[in-house]
Amino acid sequence: MATKSKTFILEGQAAWEQTGEGVRRQIMGYSEQLMLVKVEFQQGSVGAMHEHPHAQASYVASGKFEVQIGEAKQTLACGDGFFVEPNVPHGVRCLEAGVLVDTFTPVRRDFLKA
Amino acid sequence: MATKSKTFILEGQAAWEQTGEGVRRQIMGYSEQLMLVKVEFQQGSVGAMHEHPHAQASYVASGKFEVQIGEAKQTLACGDGFFVEPNVPHGVRCLEAGVLVDTFTPVRRDFLKA
Repeated sequence: MATKSKTFILEGQAAWEQTGEGVRRQIMGYSEQLMLVKVEFQQGSVGAMHEHPHAQASYVASGKFEVQIGEAKQTLACGDGFFVEPNVPHGVRCLEAGVLVDTFTPVRRDFLKA
Repeated sequence: MATKSKTFILEGQAAWEQTGEGVRRQIMGYSEQLMLVKVEFQQGSVGAMHEHPHAQASYVASGKFEVQIGEAKQTLACGDGFFVEPNVPHGVRCLEAGVLVDTFTPVRRDFLKA
């Protein structure tokens, strides 16, 4: 079966998945080679350091975050972005509640329900 | 030379490129297989119907847009998304000023300066 999302993905219709304390995500679109995920953070919540073989490009849609990629740390706010090469450890700490748009290539199969 | 962006891309430091009347973009991060672009639209501006061999996942970071993909049309607002398979014609009309986050695989070489 083809791995692909609908063409239009409405916030009011997409499922939310709680992924940690004060953190939840909505999968907003994907096919085999590309996935876009909305991740909503409450102030003080954390996306713990982790790594994966997928390349990741992210955008701060709202809020403020301390982002660590490898050894580098940077505070990013609405309108900023960051890029994570495959297998590089990265994580975020939410300084002000907001939304990250995380995109991956290839698709994060681990995010898809069986 | 490797095709890749910086790790952290700050809105205040990234170049804006005017791409049409009332439309401008900032490249927010990329490597060979993934690119994330911020596109800012003024109310009434248009991203004309076009197509490309890259898959595209997009997120409405703010504003409201009428989005056409193939023959399908949908009005999308902040928090919604859409997915465009390779070589499928698509375009947008901005109903309320805002920002689209467009992501592509592979990288849009045509967006990179020589």
